[in-house]
Amino acid sequence: MFWILFLIFLGACFAAGATGGLFPPGQWYRALNKPTWTPPDWVFPVAWTTLYLCMATAGARVAMAEDNGVAMALWSLQIALNGLWTPVFFGLKRIRLGMVVLGALWLAVAASVVALWQTDWIAGMLFLPYLAWVTVAGALNASVWRLNPGEAR
Amino acid sequence: MFWILFLIFLGACFAAGATGGLFPPGQWYRALNKPTWTPPDWVFPVAWTTLYLCMATAGARVAMAEDNGVAMALWSLQIALNGLWTPVFFGLKRIRLGMVVLGALWLAVAASVVALWQTDWIAGMLFLPYLAWVTVAGALNASVWRLNPGEAR
Repeated sequence: MFWILFLIFLGACFAAGATGGLFPPGQWYRALNKPTWTPPDWVFPVAWTTLYLCMATAGARVAMAEDNGVAMALWSLQIALNGLWTPVFFGLKRIRLGMVVLGALWLAVAASVVALWQTDWIAGMLFLPYLAWVTVAGALNASVWRLNPGEAR
Repeated sequence: MFWILFLIFLGACFAAGATGGLFPPGQWYRALNKPTWTPPDWVFPVAWTTLYLCMATAGARVAMAEDNGVAMALWSLQIALNGLWTPVFFGLKRIRLGMVVLGALWLAVAASVVALWQTDWIAGMLFLPYLAWVTVAGALNASVWRLNPGEAR
């Protein structure tokens, strides 16, 4: 049963992550002013692949547990927000609206850590790298906003 | 507890549905050849709002039930695919890839009906209008593909 659940959750991650391939960082992103600590492009797919494996594992573990309602609802919320950021930022080039989506995603992931942990502490642990990465992504989005006032909309 | 769960699932629906406002049908869509039975534009937000309320209700009911693992995993999968179609079709104007996403969404929703029903038959019922609407959307996407061979990619 774990593996069926894992594959369904991984499918959800793949659907959200597909936006990364469909709306790649192009000329517009390369031309933006970015902070010195911006990770190189190749880091992003590596990080997301790792995080998606952790997220699917956490989802499958909690799906098999009792009293998983809030954790499962938050898992759905975070994956829907996760798939929204890339089309907003890279597709529509809307830096400020991207910041709003990332803020909502950060809150959903932070709430997920708590709810997952209460159901299964290993699942909660598996979401911590995700929370850290969304924090970095939020700082990057905020820096891009600050460093490119003319592009911010 | 029902209302907390309902609001979290509704938030996930809102994140997926926001793509409809962010990637609206513009000049490109209006200029496409469409079948005579194409619903007028205003029907789509009305239909989706109704469906999202049904989906969030179904999600909250099943989140409170026991042995809800597969149903919860499929709820996550369908909302991730739901939010992917609009950026692919209206954002990237990729009619054929939109068909692939809709096919995957149809399968996820059909599987959700079965899994939800096994946990709570009312939740399964609440997903039936969604399955019907995705069937219509799939037929519309397929017709648009057939009627606009020069635009299909």
